Amino acid sequence: VVLSTRRLDHLGPVDPFSGQVTVGAGATLEAVQRHAAASGFEVAVDLAARGSATIGGMVATNAGGTRVLRHGPMRAQVVGIEAVLGTGRIVSHLGGLLKDNTGYDLASLLCGSEGTLGVVTAVRLRLVGAAPFRTTALLGVADAAIAVDCLVAVRRGAPTLEAAELFFDDGLDLVVEHLGVTPPFASSRPRTYLLLEAAGAADPTDELLAALAAVGDRIDETAVATDAGRRAELWRYREAHTEAINAAGVPHKLDVTLPLGGLASFCDEVRDVVTGVAPTARAFLFGHAGDGNVHVNVIGPDVSDDVDRAVLELVARRGGSISAEHGIGTAKKAFLHLGRSDDELDTFRRIKAALDPAGILNPNALLPSS
Amino acid sequence: VVLSTRRLDHLGPVDPFSGQVTVGAGATLEAVQRHAAASGFEVAVDLAARGSATIGGMVATNAGGTRVLRHGPMRAQVVGIEAVLGTGRIVSHLGGLLKDNTGYDLASLLCGSEGTLGVVTAVRLRLVGAAPFRTTALLGVADAAIAVDCLVAVRRGAPTLEAAELFFDDGLDLVVEHLGVTPPFASSRPRTYLLLEAAGAADPTDELLAALAAVGDRIDETAVATDAGRRAELWRYREAHTEAINAAGVPHKLDVTLPLGGLASFCDEVRDVVTGVAPTARAFLFGHAGDGNVHVNVIGPDVSDDVDRAVLELVARRGGSISAEHGIGTAKKAFLHLGRSDDELDTFRRIKAALDPAGILNPNALLPSS
Repeated sequence: VVLSTRRLDHLGPVDPFSGQVTVGAGATLEAVQRHAAASGFEVAVDLAARGSATIGGMVATNAGGTRVLRHGPMRAQVVGIEAVLGTGRIVSHLGGLLKDNTGYDLASLLCGSEGTLGVVTAVRLRLVGAAPFRTTALLGVADAAIAVDCLVAVRRGAPTLEAAELFFDDGLDLVVEHLGVTPPFASSRPRTYLLLEAAGAADPTDELLAALAAVGDRIDETAVATDAGRRAELWRYREAHTEAINAAGVPHKLDVTLPLGGLASFCDEVRDVVTGVAPTARAFLFGHAGDGNVHVNVIGPDVSDDVDRAVLELVARRGGSISAEHGIGTAKKAFLHLGRSDDELDTFRRIKAALDPAGILNPNALLPSS
Repeated sequence: VVLSTRRLDHLGPVDPFSGQVTVGAGATLEAVQRHAAASGFEVAVDLAARGSATIGGMVATNAGGTRVLRHGPMRAQVVGIEAVLGTGRIVSHLGGLLKDNTGYDLASLLCGSEGTLGVVTAVRLRLVGAAPFRTTALLGVADAAIAVDCLVAVRRGAPTLEAAELFFDDGLDLVVEHLGVTPPFASSRPRTYLLLEAAGAADPTDELLAALAAVGDRIDETAVATDAGRRAELWRYREAHTEAINAAGVPHKLDVTLPLGGLASFCDEVRDVVTGVAPTARAFLFGHAGDGNVHVNVIGPDVSDDVDRAVLELVARRGGSISAEHGIGTAKKAFLHLGRSDDELDTFRRIKAALDPAGILNPNALLPSS
């Protein structure tokens, strides 16, 4: 049986006291964004697939996206949930009270469970106040280590920082060619790019640029935009990576998180690891640097599961997570042991058996056979 | 067997990249606060019992306290956990990666589980940047409805708001007598008090007072303090409520959350409900208004469990939570059904049976017999 919650797309009233809204699992992020904006609020999570991503799917996968460094992932937005569990029991706790210690936190448990415990039918979301001012800056620097230093400086000095995205010249070349646009900087071609966005009740431009002053002499190029059109152009260089890479080949996609202190060296190491396994492969790296989250997309005729394994083993050795925001699903099940001990996997299986004893919900996802 | 984790009091290094620290479950909040401050950080949760409250206990109870409206409860601070489950399995996931979708969120599940699923041994905490400037304002107003209007205005206009505490003249009288201090306002005696505190990288006084301008003509008295000594005096009126009430009798303590839109009317209603059941009882109300969290302390010779029942039934009728931050324990087990359905209780029991199949962990707490 294939279940769909797409028709559960109701949008409840936005509560101005709590800044919360209850929506059906089938509502798209874009629909909820429009609904919240009409009351002066925003959904704290944003991602490029906003037109098709449903709130239920975003909860089931604990979606991340570009603003996690400011507001946390989907789990941090879910203040109430309604779901049908594998037991047939319906749990509904949609009051959205921030202080409510009356038993186990089922909302957080269901968030990120990939549909293996229950089918989410409605969600109570916390919203954040709409930020009327928004500044985007694209920096061009020599390498990932400098990009991370810039990021650390901005995180300290600019509390309004909302996104910090990393990409490289090889991915940018694909984007420029795919879109038929001009590169961001006319007179030079930096190797490494950091896209920063700050948002607030007042213009955050000065704060953002002042925070960069400490590392200013290591920044080769800077483009700053405050109007929506020019900001969108800067974002396009980053957001078009997925479609440009897909157009260049069928990528193996790995989605990993590194501790921020090890992010820069990972970016260098992972290319060597990939070409060590598949000499003609090309590894494109981009992602949400603010969270240490890197998407590693590998294309080439000799790319196999061995590449996936080598990259994920490197991630595990560096203390990272083998799945940042894409989850485990069926494709990464065989690698879950790299990030989770036998004791943890046993615990996961016990929870699965408790809430879905017949194993009817997404039976092949997440949990490897014991 | 009585387990203690008090000797697990190690304090790991503060990671400046992530702003996180790993500490043993037996470390007191105060010890972690001092440790974090040495690196320019703060623990986001604060509460009056900081000298004796351990981090493990605060996780097990999902502690709240005075700053939840700004930073969330303990669950929002826990980015990694180590625990021994009732199965004997040891789960340890202390990397603190903000994007990590590799299975069920055991940290959130253990947080607030009241020791019924596992014994927490270590915790990875997110910290927040230390706020060098702090302003406290005590407002005197006519009633709780005006206090809530002030709160809503400040929440909208002052993002630096960190605490909003409510109390009333009858509780203040006990405090003034118990401590032997002078009342906060020399020339008048307002019925209702709202204590606000804002904190930030710059002096938040102007922002706080400007945010109150919209409701200014309904505020009868205002005391503002920025120096630590005077701020502590204002806080003392609020924080001494528990000891002053304990000195006046043996209170029945109820700890509830109301939706903010219904908080003011609840404060009026609950007094009538209490005296309806116990005519000579005195109900003292105080708490964390910013979260809708009210502590109802009832003293008097004719106070019985019937008072508890009547108050908690009122809370349930008004869409509130029967336990805000104190949890269920053994004392509130009989009332858990007021806030949780049979399906939810069944789900809780299944989770308990999965992770503590022999029922050896805190066996009489939280879950009522089925």
